Amino acid sequence: MTNILLTGFEPFDQDTVNPSWEVARALADWTLEVDGVSARVHARQLPCVFGQASEVLRQAMQELQPQLVVCLGLAGTRSDITPERVAINVDDARIPDNAGAQPIDQSVVADGPVAYWSTLPIKAIARDLRTAGIPVSVSNTAGSFVCNHVFYALMHALAGQGLAARGGFVHLPLLPQQAARIPGAPSMALSTQVEGIQVLLRTALTVRDDVQETAGKLH
Amino acid sequence: MTNILLTGFEPFDQDTVNPSWEVARALADWTLEVDGVSARVHARQLPCVFGQASEVLRQAMQELQPQLVVCLGLAGTRSDITPERVAINVDDARIPDNAGAQPIDQSVVADGPVAYWSTLPIKAIARDLRTAGIPVSVSNTAGSFVCNHVFYALMHALAGQGLAARGGFVHLPLLPQQAARIPGAPSMALSTQVEGIQVLLRTALTVRDDVQETAGKLH
Amino acid sequence: MTNILLTGFEPFDQDTVNPSWEVARALADWTLEVDGVSARVHARQLPCVFGQASEVLRQAMQELQPQLVVCLGLAGTRSDITPERVAINVDDARIPDNAGAQPIDQSVVADGPVAYWSTLPIKAIARDLRTAGIPVSVSNTAGSFVCNHVFYALMHALAGQGLAARGGFVHLPLLPQQAARIPGAPSMALSTQVEGIQVLLRTALTVRDDVQETAGKLH
Amino acid sequence: MTNILLTGFEPFDQDTVNPSWEVARALADWTLEVDGVSARVHARQLPCVFGQASEVLRQAMQELQPQLVVCLGLAGTRSDITPERVAINVDDARIPDNAGAQPIDQSVVADGPVAYWSTLPIKAIARDLRTAGIPVSVSNTAGSFVCNHVFYALMHALAGQGLAARGGFVHLPLLPQQAARIPGAPSMALSTQVEGIQVLLRTALTVRDDVQETAGKLH
Repeated sequence: MTNILLTGFEPFDQDTVNPSWEVARALADWTLEVDGVSARVHARQLPCVFGQASEVLRQAMQELQPQLVVCLGLAGTRSDITPERVAINVDDARIPDNAGAQPIDQSVVADGPVAYWSTLPIKAIARDLRTAGIPVSVSNTAGSFVCNHVFYALMHALAGQGLAARGGFVHLPLLPQQAARIPGAPSMALSTQVEGIQVLLRTALTVRDDVQETAGKLH
Repeated sequence: MTNILLTGFEPFDQDTVNPSWEVARALADWTLEVDGVSARVHARQLPCVFGQASEVLRQAMQELQPQLVVCLGLAGTRSDITPERVAINVDDARIPDNAGAQPIDQSVVADGPVAYWSTLPIKAIARDLRTAGIPVSVSNTAGSFVCNHVFYALMHALAGQGLAARGGFVHLPLLPQQAARIPGAPSMALSTQVEGIQVLLRTALTVRDDVQETAGKLH
Repeated sequence: MTNILLTGFEPFDQDTVNPSWEVARALADWTLEVDGVSARVHARQLPCVFGQASEVLRQAMQELQPQLVVCLGLAGTRSDITPERVAINVDDARIPDNAGAQPIDQSVVADGPVAYWSTLPIKAIARDLRTAGIPVSVSNTAGSFVCNHVFYALMHALAGQGLAARGGFVHLPLLPQQAARIPGAPSMALSTQVEGIQVLLRTALTVRDDVQETAGKLH
Repeated sequence: MTNILLTGFEPFDQDTVNPSWEVARALADWTLEVDGVSARVHARQLPCVFGQASEVLRQAMQELQPQLVVCLGLAGTRSDITPERVAINVDDARIPDNAGAQPIDQSVVADGPVAYWSTLPIKAIARDLRTAGIPVSVSNTAGSFVCNHVFYALMHALAGQGLAARGGFVHLPLLPQQAARIPGAPSMALSTQVEGIQVLLRTALTVRDDVQETAGKLH
């Protein structure tokens, strides 16, 4: 049995719901068969708090010893599902987190490297979601708030373990009921988001070497 | 029995699907009860062709004598469902229609008035979709392509009949499978679109005098 | 001597400057020669107040008997200069005007027609600004705030006079110093805006019959 | 005498002009006085070609031994001047460069670190441009095309030298004459761009320790 750790955040900034947790929750205990081996999703909620979020993540990783870790977060202005390419070693908060902290230009990990690559096959993921009819694009920035914080902490932990476990971060759009209160905001139905993450998890377990397919951005 | 005429367009401009027709088709023969009276949806497909589109619409109106006519169209850059406020008497085509015609600054109806208001209760519709958690906003322009052409022809026909029938035009976003091929394009799941139009039809049959609620745009 | 009336608005909604007035002021007393006849710009500031704005406009028209009236306004989310195609007979204010009034779905002119076309040669204007290297596009909606209110009042006044005077409304982008306080907002330098309106005025005085050139919008 | 190296790119992708080179050229030989010491700008044009661009940059650095290196590039969808925070070690080209090369997921520098921080005081730069009324924001991604390639090569070279020289990359918007051919595209006048880079260079020479001011992005 392969363990998959799938995390989502609690709501933040006046919201009452967070699609990242709704998707993770919807996929709790979902099992998929890959090459004759069963893999099971373990869903965990992270607080939207610098420090605490990565601590809860580390505890879940220790407990579950997952072969695959995918952390989900909300990107409220994006229209599509965006696997992130790179995590950077900085906390720079435009608004306070759920505990009221607002760090500016602090390291996620003191003396850590500037950045880590995602170890998910992000190009194959983009290809497979597109084939499934689900809007997707590779992103080159996870921002500098709690999402990037968790992403960096995840990759730092995986790099330190020297394990074969794969991990990465994926941003999700708003849910329609959230966008209904924000004029012009794009959104994606929960069912589409859940289907997209199902495709993503299967690809992440299946594709060893990422495909050579451009997802480059000019800027 | 109340007749509702709900139209959608055939695909255009290299697309193989058009959400406006998918929604209309999904609601064909749907019946709803309003104040003890049954209302039934009749779905018709319109060609994406200047002139022909309004002709097919007029024939369907003559055949069905509907109390309510809602024409649906695709607005590929919008994130939400947008009931239109006003139809203008101009065809100005940025690209050719499905018959290859590309009129520039021609009247929809020679000697017709500059514009017609929608007679749908667009503010109540916006309020009710928002309450249902579906992204929506009132739009002040239906463009100058076949969508506006059909909208103007519809309102001209209704005005000429002096009937109590209500009518208007509603733009819909792309479907996710369409947006998957267009980087960054917003979309809305078919199920959300269908639910939105169900709410809209009920409101259009129920609310006599539109609510006083701003949906104004600064520009 | 030909009189040109060029209006701009006072600042509104917490701003201290309004590009529409800065441009009008910069062109006050500018004269241009067209076909051997001199034309002089008369600049007037309009209050950003429903009713008052159109009253000040009417007084200036009576005083100056202009052959050309161009009213300028701010469209804070647009990147380019946008000559407007059509004015609609509705005041629907998303925010209060500078006198605190916030009309919802009221007529600009009771019993007036639904809409008026601009009588500026908007296609030739778009062509000539583009040739001059200035971003421009024809817009199909002037919104439903004081800008559209003044636009409708202008066209109603011109239609009532049965004069040969031409008129229309043009939206301008933010100035850079305004955009500097709004993350991601587009802007245009005052010098570019002024040059654009100079080109526009010359075209409006020169081109009798508008060119056949598409500026259509799909939606 | 302090040497400042300011680079811009040749035009690419069907353009005939590139604002990054227009700005660098306009500031060639510009001198400014900082703390009683003169600093002079040396402008160099880089080819929009992977490999060659960083090679030309390295030669200019060797020749000039600059204390400050600022590389400029075009970000055609942005409205403001964007000092970049981080360079990543990947070439992933969505379109071919000017030599026809289109690398996918290749390292800029084999065995180089994942990323380098800009050593410009990007927060102080953002503060000072904003004060000067020039639209600006800190960016967390320089993309994965030749701009990021040059940025990474620059920071790698500076890190290897162990010198006190500072360096970084700044993206610029389109010029108005470019945007005039792209419907809806934002732009910034050359004079505003030049003034912005003048402010930036002065700040980069003056501010030793960057200010603590959030420029964080949620995602």
